[in-house]
Amino acid sequence: MASKIARPTANTLNKLHSRLVGILGESKVSTARAVLEQHGKDLTYHPVMAPDIVCFPGTTDEVSKVVKACAEDRVPIVPFGAGTSLEGHITAPFGGVSLDLSRNMTQIKNVRVEDLDCTVQAGVTRNQLNAHLKDTGLFFSVDPGADATLGGMVSTRASGTTAVRYGTMRDVTVNLEVVLPSGEVIQTTKRSRKTSAGYNLTSLMVGAEGTLGVVTEATLRLQGVPAAVCAASCAFPNLESAVMCSQLIIQAGIPIARCEFLDEECVKAVNKDSHLGQREVPTLFLEFHGASESALKEQVDMVQQMALDFGGEEFHMTFAPEDRTRLWKARHHAWHACTALKPDALAWSSDVCVPISKLAECVSETKKDIENAKLLAPIVGHVGDGNFHCFFIISKNDPSELDRAKIVNERMVRRAISLDGTITGEHGIGIGKQKYLIEELGPVAVDVMRAVKNAIDPLGIMNPGKIFST
Amino acid sequence: MASKIARPTANTLNKLHSRLVGILGESKVSTARAVLEQHGKDLTYHPVMAPDIVCFPGTTDEVSKVVKACAEDRVPIVPFGAGTSLEGHITAPFGGVSLDLSRNMTQIKNVRVEDLDCTVQAGVTRNQLNAHLKDTGLFFSVDPGADATLGGMVSTRASGTTAVRYGTMRDVTVNLEVVLPSGEVIQTTKRSRKTSAGYNLTSLMVGAEGTLGVVTEATLRLQGVPAAVCAASCAFPNLESAVMCSQLIIQAGIPIARCEFLDEECVKAVNKDSHLGQREVPTLFLEFHGASESALKEQVDMVQQMALDFGGEEFHMTFAPEDRTRLWKARHHAWHACTALKPDALAWSSDVCVPISKLAECVSETKKDIENAKLLAPIVGHVGDGNFHCFFIISKNDPSELDRAKIVNERMVRRAISLDGTITGEHGIGIGKQKYLIEELGPVAVDVMRAVKNAIDPLGIMNPGKIFST
Repeated sequence: MASKIARPTANTLNKLHSRLVGILGESKVSTARAVLEQHGKDLTYHPVMAPDIVCFPGTTDEVSKVVKACAEDRVPIVPFGAGTSLEGHITAPFGGVSLDLSRNMTQIKNVRVEDLDCTVQAGVTRNQLNAHLKDTGLFFSVDPGADATLGGMVSTRASGTTAVRYGTMRDVTVNLEVVLPSGEVIQTTKRSRKTSAGYNLTSLMVGAEGTLGVVTEATLRLQGVPAAVCAASCAFPNLESAVMCSQLIIQAGIPIARCEFLDEECVKAVNKDSHLGQREVPTLFLEFHGASESALKEQVDMVQQMALDFGGEEFHMTFAPEDRTRLWKARHHAWHACTALKPDALAWSSDVCVPISKLAECVSETKKDIENAKLLAPIVGHVGDGNFHCFFIISKNDPSELDRAKIVNERMVRRAISLDGTITGEHGIGIGKQKYLIEELGPVAVDVMRAVKNAIDPLGIMNPGKIFST
Repeated sequence: MASKIARPTANTLNKLHSRLVGILGESKVSTARAVLEQHGKDLTYHPVMAPDIVCFPGTTDEVSKVVKACAEDRVPIVPFGAGTSLEGHITAPFGGVSLDLSRNMTQIKNVRVEDLDCTVQAGVTRNQLNAHLKDTGLFFSVDPGADATLGGMVSTRASGTTAVRYGTMRDVTVNLEVVLPSGEVIQTTKRSRKTSAGYNLTSLMVGAEGTLGVVTEATLRLQGVPAAVCAASCAFPNLESAVMCSQLIIQAGIPIARCEFLDEECVKAVNKDSHLGQREVPTLFLEFHGASESALKEQVDMVQQMALDFGGEEFHMTFAPEDRTRLWKARHHAWHACTALKPDALAWSSDVCVPISKLAECVSETKKDIENAKLLAPIVGHVGDGNFHCFFIISKNDPSELDRAKIVNERMVRRAISLDGTITGEHGIGIGKQKYLIEELGPVAVDVMRAVKNAIDPLGIMNPGKIFST
C-alpha cells in the first residue's frame, strides 16, 4: 500500500518554498492568498481546499525538478490547468503544491499537417489550438463546454459535442509526455497511428486525473475541416420522442457529427442568454459533416424523416456558417445560461452515460425525479453517445436544495449502473464520485486500479484524495 | 519486484494435475505429448516450448478455479486461443499450464443490435462471430489474416485490413471480463460508449498479451454493414508511387475502408495461389464503404485521380460481391501464398508501423535491405495505417538465411523507431521483440510497465517471459 499522505508541516513548506524559488525563480512561485484560493476551487459545489504553494513552471525540466523536490519531502502535488473541471479534481485536500501549467506551458510545438497530428504543451487550451490551426485545413475536435487546457482534458478523458463522430480524448490522444511521481520523464508511446508494443500507457494516463503523473506534453490527432457542414435543430412534443429519435439516428449508423439534446428548461435558458428564439420544448441540435453538400443532403433527409416519425416539428437546417456558429455558441454557453436562471445560485453539473438503447429510460426517469424533488435542473445531453448532464441550479440560501439534488444525483448514478452504464461519461471521479466508482465496478476492479496507483506512485504524492479515498 | 518464476517440479505438477482433473474432469485436461507440443508452437520461427499440462475450461468459473490452483503452487499459466500469434506469445518457456479457451469457451452470449455491440466468450473466432451476425445487418470489423480467437485478438491488440476505417481491437473493445492472477474475476468497465470512471482497465488489458490475467469474455463494438461497397485494385510503376498514393489518400481525409499494399513478390504469390491474374508489380487493393453507390462514386473518383497522378494503371473497380470476396480472400491468404513460394521453407512475419508521412521512406529502405541481403521477403502493408509486414521466407536448409533475416528485421525495427514509429503495429512483443521495446520507449517507460505487471501479478505466474525478459 502507498504510504498514507499527510499534510506537510510549516517547516517542510518553508524549506520547500525556498527550494522551489531556487528552481523556478521568484516570479513562478506564489503563496499569495488569492492565488492559493483560486487554485483550491473548481466550478462546482465542492468546498475550497487550497494548496500551500502554487508553481508556474515553464518547461518539462522545471516540472521534473519541482516534482523531485516534492517527492523528497513527500509533499502532495496537484496538477492544475484551466481549473474548469467539475468533480473537485484540482482541489488540495492535503495542501501541498499546485502545479499550474496554464501560464507558462502554452507552446504549440509542432503541427504536422502531413500526419494529421500536433504536439502541444499541456497548458495550451483547445481554443488556442484551434485558433492556431485556422489556415491549415485541420481542426482539433474535442470540445467540452469550457476552454479547458489540453492537459486537463487528457486527465479527465474529456469529450463534448463532437465525440459521437470523432471520439473522446481517449481516441485522439496519440501519445503523452509525463513527469512521473519520481520526477523521471517518459513518453508513453511513439507517433504511429497504432502500436502493439507493450502496455497502453497512453490510455492509462488519459483519465487518470493527475494521480499517476503530470502530463506535460500531448500529441493529438487532428481532423480535416469538412468540405460541407450543415447544422439543424428540431423541436419535439416531449422528452421521450426527442431522445428516441437520437437513439434511432445512432442505431441506423448515420455518421452524425453532433447530436445534442436540450430539455425545455435548457432551451429557455439559452433563448434568454443567446436570443436563439427556439420553441421552448425538448429539442435536438444536430450537425452533419461531409465531403459535399449533395452527400450531406442524403444524411439530412434521412434524419429529418426520422424526426418527423417521432413527431418532430420545425426542422430548421442551415449551411450558413454564421447560423451554425450562433447555434453552437449558444449550446456551449448552456451551462452559464442555466446558472443565470436563478439569482445567487450555485450550479452543479453531474453526468452519466448509458448504452444507447437505455438512454430514453434513463433520461425520462431522471426528469421525473427532478420534478418530484421540485428542483431546477435542466438536462442537456450528448445523446448520440448515451451521455447526459443534469445542471442542478441550487439556491445558496436554501441548503435543503443541495441535499435534494444529492439524492436525485445518487438515484441517477445508480440508475445508470443498473442500466449497464457508467457513473460519469466525461467529468471523472475526482472527490465527488468515489463511492459510486466501487458500486459501478466492484471492489476488486477498484483494487486493481489502486494497485496500479501504488505501483507508479508509491509515496502517494500525486493528486492525493482523488479517484480513491485515502 | 515479482518473484522470479521457476519451472514447476514433477511433484508439483503431479499434484496440480490431479487437482485440475478434479476441477474440470478428465476430458478437459491433457498431458498427451502431441497436445503439449501443439500448444508450445506458434506460426513462426520461435522454437517449440511446450507446457506441462493443457486445460480446456468451459466457463469463467472454471478458469478462475484453475488460476487459483496454479497460483497456490506458483505454476505458470499461458492463455491460449487459436495459436495464430506471431511472436511466441503462446509458448511456455517455463512450462506450466496452457489454458486453451478455443475448445469449450465458444459461446456468443449476446448480440445487441440496438446497441451495436455483442458479448462473446474469449474462444469465439472472428469468422464464427461474423457467421453468427449474418442476418443482423451488423458485422465485426477487425480482420487479422488468421481466424484468431477474439480473446487472442484482444490480447495482442490485433488489427487488420479495415483498421484504417473502423479501428483496431483497442477501439472496438467495449469491456472485458478478466480472471486476475489471483483467480478473482473483474469486469473492466460497463457497456456505455464512453466513460471517465477511473483508470482505463480495458485498454490496459487490450494488448497485455495475457501477462495481466486471462480474458474470458469480451464485449465488442459492431459496425453496420454498409449499403454500398466498392473494391478496387491498381497497379503502380514502382513501390514508392504506390505507397505515396496511399499516403495521399489518408492525408486527404478520404474515409477509405481498406488500403492495402502488396509488392511485386506478394502479387506473384497471390496470383499463383488464388489465380487473380494481377499484373506482377507493386499494387494497391482498396475498398470503399458508403451509404449509396452515388456517394461512393465521389470517393472512388478522387482516389482514381490520385492513383493516375502517381502513374497508377489498370484501376479496376467492382461493386460485385463475388469479385470483392475473391480479392480479399486472396489478400488474407497472402501469408500462406508467400510461404508456398519456396518448398520446405519457414515463414516469419515481422511488422512495424510509422507515421504516415514516413511510410514511403521506411518501406523503400526496407526493400533495399531485403534485396541487398538476397532474401525472399515479400512486403505487404496495411499502408493506410502506416503499418507494413515483411514475410521472410527462409529455407530450412540454409541457416544463414535466418541470420540475414534477423539483421534486416533489426534494421527495419530501428528504422521505424528513428522515424518516430513503433517496432510492432499489430503483432506484439511476445518473446521476439523484447530488446527493441526498451529501444523504442526507453528503460523508464518499460519500468513503469513492469511496475504495473508486478502490481497486478506479484507472483509472476501470468504468461511469464513475454513482453519483459524475466
